[in-house]
Amino acid sequence: MFRVTDKIASKALRKLLQGPRSAEYVACKRWKVLSVENINPHVKKMEYAVRGPIVIRAGEIEQELKKGVKKPFADVIRANIGDCHATGQKPLTFIRQVVALCTYPELMSNPMFPDDAKQRAQRILDGCGGHSLGAYSDSAGVRVIREDVASYISERDGYPSDADNIFLSTGASDGIKNVMKLAMTGEGGNKKAGVMIPIPQYPLYTATIAEYNAHPIGYYLNEDKNWSLDMDELERALSEARPNCQPRAIVIINPGNPTGQVLTKENIQDIIRFAKQHNLVLMADEVYQHNVYAKDREFHSFKKVLMELGPDYNTMELASFMSTSKGYMGECGFRGGYSEVINLDPGVKAMLVKSISAKLCSSVSGQAVMDIVVNPPRPGEPSYETFQKERETVLGQLAEKAKMVTETFNSIPGISCQTVQGAMYAFPQIKMPPKVIQAAKEKGQAPDAFYCYNLLEDTGICVVPGSGFGQKEGTWHFRTTILPPVEKLGEMLGRFRDFHMKFMETYS
Amino acid sequence: MFRVTDKIASKALRKLLQGPRSAEYVACKRWKVLSVENINPHVKKMEYAVRGPIVIRAGEIEQELKKGVKKPFADVIRANIGDCHATGQKPLTFIRQVVALCTYPELMSNPMFPDDAKQRAQRILDGCGGHSLGAYSDSAGVRVIREDVASYISERDGYPSDADNIFLSTGASDGIKNVMKLAMTGEGGNKKAGVMIPIPQYPLYTATIAEYNAHPIGYYLNEDKNWSLDMDELERALSEARPNCQPRAIVIINPGNPTGQVLTKENIQDIIRFAKQHNLVLMADEVYQHNVYAKDREFHSFKKVLMELGPDYNTMELASFMSTSKGYMGECGFRGGYSEVINLDPGVKAMLVKSISAKLCSSVSGQAVMDIVVNPPRPGEPSYETFQKERETVLGQLAEKAKMVTETFNSIPGISCQTVQGAMYAFPQIKMPPKVIQAAKEKGQAPDAFYCYNLLEDTGICVVPGSGFGQKEGTWHFRTTILPPVEKLGEMLGRFRDFHMKFMETYS
Repeated sequence: MFRVTDKIASKALRKLLQGPRSAEYVACKRWKVLSVENINPHVKKMEYAVRGPIVIRAGEIEQELKKGVKKPFADVIRANIGDCHATGQKPLTFIRQVVALCTYPELMSNPMFPDDAKQRAQRILDGCGGHSLGAYSDSAGVRVIREDVASYISERDGYPSDADNIFLSTGASDGIKNVMKLAMTGEGGNKKAGVMIPIPQYPLYTATIAEYNAHPIGYYLNEDKNWSLDMDELERALSEARPNCQPRAIVIINPGNPTGQVLTKENIQDIIRFAKQHNLVLMADEVYQHNVYAKDREFHSFKKVLMELGPDYNTMELASFMSTSKGYMGECGFRGGYSEVINLDPGVKAMLVKSISAKLCSSVSGQAVMDIVVNPPRPGEPSYETFQKERETVLGQLAEKAKMVTETFNSIPGISCQTVQGAMYAFPQIKMPPKVIQAAKEKGQAPDAFYCYNLLEDTGICVVPGSGFGQKEGTWHFRTTILPPVEKLGEMLGRFRDFHMKFMETYS
Repeated sequence: MFRVTDKIASKALRKLLQGPRSAEYVACKRWKVLSVENINPHVKKMEYAVRGPIVIRAGEIEQELKKGVKKPFADVIRANIGDCHATGQKPLTFIRQVVALCTYPELMSNPMFPDDAKQRAQRILDGCGGHSLGAYSDSAGVRVIREDVASYISERDGYPSDADNIFLSTGASDGIKNVMKLAMTGEGGNKKAGVMIPIPQYPLYTATIAEYNAHPIGYYLNEDKNWSLDMDELERALSEARPNCQPRAIVIINPGNPTGQVLTKENIQDIIRFAKQHNLVLMADEVYQHNVYAKDREFHSFKKVLMELGPDYNTMELASFMSTSKGYMGECGFRGGYSEVINLDPGVKAMLVKSISAKLCSSVSGQAVMDIVVNPPRPGEPSYETFQKERETVLGQLAEKAKMVTETFNSIPGISCQTVQGAMYAFPQIKMPPKVIQAAKEKGQAPDAFYCYNLLEDTGICVVPGSGFGQKEGTWHFRTTILPPVEKLGEMLGRFRDFHMKFMETYS
């Protein structure tokens, strides 16, 4: 389940996955050092559905359309990945001004750039070696940017944050992998490390757990309660997994991906108590902290709730992850991110620093983007109004689209969709008639994959089957982003409805 | 051996490494999930000398100087890391213009930017989702940039290169780790994967081998023959290691880091034959391919030599790594890099694509910098002359400094230094009198570390002891960059000579 951009590899892989080995393959294996049989078994086990075979097929269809092949649709709508700018969102002016100034400081004298952008850029450059984005930063990132991140967190939560606990990373993914790596147990006599992850989950987690040869402990989110966490379910999952691993950490994604829920403070308190009781490191994936749409919900950081719970809890090990890719900024390509890691044993923290230092540092231009996210224009500064307007426009449209998606899916017979309270996705459930299940079986596909392939071929809409994220046995879902522009999204939902009605008719 | 920017962790670590456990530490361990005892043993084993304890001490001295503490020197000279811009090198105008245009396309109408920069920027943006650096690229990188890399390689070598074999990465380090990961064998009944690495080596390799729980097979470079590779030594290293591992790959660093040699074509041919005979993947670290100073040497890529060797060899698995951080551009902070990986089994290649897709993509701004490195202004384009002039200035100064460093070190009694033919470092040998060895022993330090600490405290010069890179038993070295500006480098070498003479007098 991944994206292969070149056809040869894609074909070869499908052959390997689907059929018996070709003579050609066996011949080639003979003179290669590395074969699919003998490479790293953990790499083989990795899966990443967001760039899986359906996405490869979407790319092929785009090529076919370009070549003039007739299709029942004019274009492919890529709703498989949370890639804001690719789906038409405009970058925020202020962010780009500051990064352009940092990149080419000759622009400092250009009147096109406002003073607050120039001040931010100068401050970042003064924190860089040789005043250049081209110098390596400290392993954990440019000091002033880490200080700005700490100020942002302090202001957000009302509890102090220390720049020494901030690690800038190449997107949040990199930070998550760095922290999870620490908790592994190594080979030999030790049991594998167990990491609790939600089901459904963002597939970075299962991919990383496979790569690190750890043990995934899946806990089901409660779909009926809008994908919230049940304490009984956490207990069940943990006690069933105990014989097979050494549980070390629990991952929580809030707001949820792919599920779009926003956790209540009470739910977070319960999770923290659970982690304390069972001696687990808290890993809070909070990259969607700016993306809350439901009127009755607000974002509560794990850090804040942990601090509020007082002395028994405020010394627990917690890592929180943030990214430049989501929120209103959508700067995925700059690969900016941070981790705040608190209450680590100082020796362990030193090991974390050491382990990241071999890669030298994360992208300094990505770090600069992170700086603006945590230190945006303030009231009274020349860029404040434009920035706020741009920000509110993006978030307002996302809120509108979240509502539109939830309501449309729920109006279609055979589809149910929990309220998209936050993040950028919906994860609707499809009631599959027995004939679909039969037809999928005959094709050697899971019913949800069968459904998504048909959707793609008939409508050009590219979404990801629920099996790529995990789902309760016998239930079938898909993940779609809510990112396309309102009009396009309306068109997409129209195409979807028509497809679904016909599909269900065919298989009823 | 790493860099810790915050004092607490640094102190805690030094305590752990140096002395018996404090009561405080034992108490803290009790309520932490992660302790130095129970974290990932492979992370504990990692070492990265370039950001080791001497560098931490250098940072402390800088702080002391700021506070007005009297020292026998006015400033710290950081010669520990190949960080060009941090040591005063100016970014190339054209590179920064293109990246600024890509970042803030509103500048496209600005007459300050030349047309060729605008064309390059537009072409890159047209290859990006939503025409934005903020969109995710393909896992392997933006297609047009990969095509430009392939053209650059074809032009360089006179043999075709395929964009489908190009993987853009977050610096070369990321690419090296991705390829090496494939060759691991996993746990269980399998022997560890063996990876041949030069000694001395760039410590990314030993750090990655430790992290992946592989087996390092060190082969000594021949210092007497200007750090070239001896085939007998390769054979010795491999046959000694065979009982303990499954040899899978050989790493060659050319031009050499830390050793500065540039391999002859004959030497490369021999290495390729060796790899063929022993069924090893070739991993050619060629990040210094633009940094050749010796008049009698030129850079030969492994790809070209492999192709020239014809049918028996031109189907061998080879990965070559390149970076934006070195050369004349020195854009370390942008974390750009590429790997060209040829002759992989298509199924294995698909696994490589899959394994990188979970991290989504490398920094797209770093990819843009890579594009300019492989596609610089051509004769006749408006930026050509300035670009060439800036490029030649940097490379000319580096050549001058390479000569100056080699000659100065060789003029100092008790120091010998092989010719710095390429790259950015010298790796001189120090003849240690028995009294130094004794004094170091009493301090619990290796003699080269003892020497470097003394050098730092007495002169402010920060270099890295040879033990961080590996060296023949009983020989002692250090690595210094040749990057400081000519005048500063002259001053540094002066301080160094005075220190060395006094040091040797004290201990003779």
